[in-house]
Amino acid sequence: MKYGVTKDYVLNLEVVLPTGEIIWTGANVLKNSTGYNLTQLLTGSEGTLGIITKIVFRLIPLPKHNLLMLAPFFSAIKAVEAVSAIFRAGITPSAMEFLERDAIDWALKYVDGISVKVKDEVQAHLIIEVDGNDREVLMKECEKIMEVLQQFECDEILFADTQEQKNALWKMRRSVAEAVKTHSVYKEEDTVVPRAELPALLAGVKEIGRKYGFQSVCYGHAGDGNLHVNIIKGNMDNEQWKNVLPQGIREIFQLCVKLGGTISGEHGIGWVQKEYMDIAFNDKSRALQKQIKLVFDPNGILNPGKIWI
Amino acid sequence: MKYGVTKDYVLNLEVVLPTGEIIWTGANVLKNSTGYNLTQLLTGSEGTLGIITKIVFRLIPLPKHNLLMLAPFFSAIKAVEAVSAIFRAGITPSAMEFLERDAIDWALKYVDGISVKVKDEVQAHLIIEVDGNDREVLMKECEKIMEVLQQFECDEILFADTQEQKNALWKMRRSVAEAVKTHSVYKEEDTVVPRAELPALLAGVKEIGRKYGFQSVCYGHAGDGNLHVNIIKGNMDNEQWKNVLPQGIREIFQLCVKLGGTISGEHGIGWVQKEYMDIAFNDKSRALQKQIKLVFDPNGILNPGKIWI
Repeated sequence: MKYGVTKDYVLNLEVVLPTGEIIWTGANVLKNSTGYNLTQLLTGSEGTLGIITKIVFRLIPLPKHNLLMLAPFFSAIKAVEAVSAIFRAGITPSAMEFLERDAIDWALKYVDGISVKVKDEVQAHLIIEVDGNDREVLMKECEKIMEVLQQFECDEILFADTQEQKNALWKMRRSVAEAVKTHSVYKEEDTVVPRAELPALLAGVKEIGRKYGFQSVCYGHAGDGNLHVNIIKGNMDNEQWKNVLPQGIREIFQLCVKLGGTISGEHGIGWVQKEYMDIAFNDKSRALQKQIKLVFDPNGILNPGKIWI
Repeated sequence: MKYGVTKDYVLNLEVVLPTGEIIWTGANVLKNSTGYNLTQLLTGSEGTLGIITKIVFRLIPLPKHNLLMLAPFFSAIKAVEAVSAIFRAGITPSAMEFLERDAIDWALKYVDGISVKVKDEVQAHLIIEVDGNDREVLMKECEKIMEVLQQFECDEILFADTQEQKNALWKMRRSVAEAVKTHSVYKEEDTVVPRAELPALLAGVKEIGRKYGFQSVCYGHAGDGNLHVNIIKGNMDNEQWKNVLPQGIREIFQLCVKLGGTISGEHGIGWVQKEYMDIAFNDKSRALQKQIKLVFDPNGILNPGKIWI
């Protein structure tokens, strides 16, 4: 299964409640319409409803083959435009990652041993993987992807022929966060929108950055519409960073919601995003969720202060 | 995506609450870790928490081809043993339906125009479909499935070559419930277990039937571990049907839970299964779920009497 999200693989949970009582949320089955879906209610609840002590996952067969390609673009907006075009062509890649030029540069500058060459004119990369059990089918899928990519002014596409080359591409992608986080004061936003709205999101983030005077490094799981926006402190003074930037972040999240998305795709809310929950949910929805919290944890002893103000 | 369940395709819901207030449960995105998962909490809640007025689904490309085969078995237990063996061989069919002999006979006897020939010795059918974009890959998958099936004393396998033949097989499968329901007083149980436990479930259902003196017609979505057990009134008198049978049904559901399953795979609880909820959930879990019901519907005006006693 491709582009399934983790929660869809979670079938059943053993949960210790704050009262010390233990429940199983569901059953070890693929289909379940017995009572309310506590399994998915607990999944992603950030430890605020109960302590998960056992998880039953659904497993799927490991695909035998995968092919990985690197597509360089002369425009970051064109790169994210290509993302939904590939899905619209009927192809469902197993991974589709986006890196804007700054993200590539941070990774190459600060992390050793990434042997990926990047031309000066390149403004973004898409890393695209397809997987399956039949190599020829995957080759055909890659050909179709290449056809689509050509329509978005893509430069020459690199196929990772060896496991070493594959490792280099994945290392570049995976090193961005590390590079940014160890070499700058930063804030990471975990924006998510319908994937066809990625171009509007990326353009909007840059515009908001110009308005508030911050630099952002954007990259992430473009196939999921999930764009990580790392905001770099750079030349901002402490006053701007502490008191002005949150308004800029608020505008980014308002844009996400306006585009049909929300304020966290995979990182969760925790301490740092809870002040933005009013953008994602109306008063009634937040009130309902807080009441659910009280049903499970009437004394508020589980991860106090997280998600809810 | 194969063997995904409906809830996994539901991304966002507009819900009218019993207070008249309106919420959206999530966002129109594939990944969402913002607050609690109200979307999946509401999905399958049988109208007891709110009225769903809009649904945002995730769509996947329609596969270009499918192949359909009918595998007759001389033993119903062998047929359901073959089910998990096919998945273990790395094949994920898009459909895998089971019919025991009685189910086949009810369909052929009471529904007109099903042109499927069945030998006297055949005790069960599996209807197996694979789908995808490459016919050759599908042919290979079918060959692999046939290899597996041979290990379970399968008779000659029929490939549905034409759309007419496919329609006939699906009509046979889909007519079972109709045939039973229009020609007998019946109760339908919607059992579900991990698919590897189907043989134990089927054998157990028959044993419980012998103990309580009822006949059952078993069929359903074997690939999901979801076995419909249609209990026929047959020669049971009203006293047995009303007062003794429920204990037999209780034993069936206890067996499901013992095997890692639960009491409804897809039909839900409604009025008729709510007396068995104590088998699926312990006291604390039922209490939590009832409190969630009260959070959404404090006056109990939504589908009163459903799911909860």
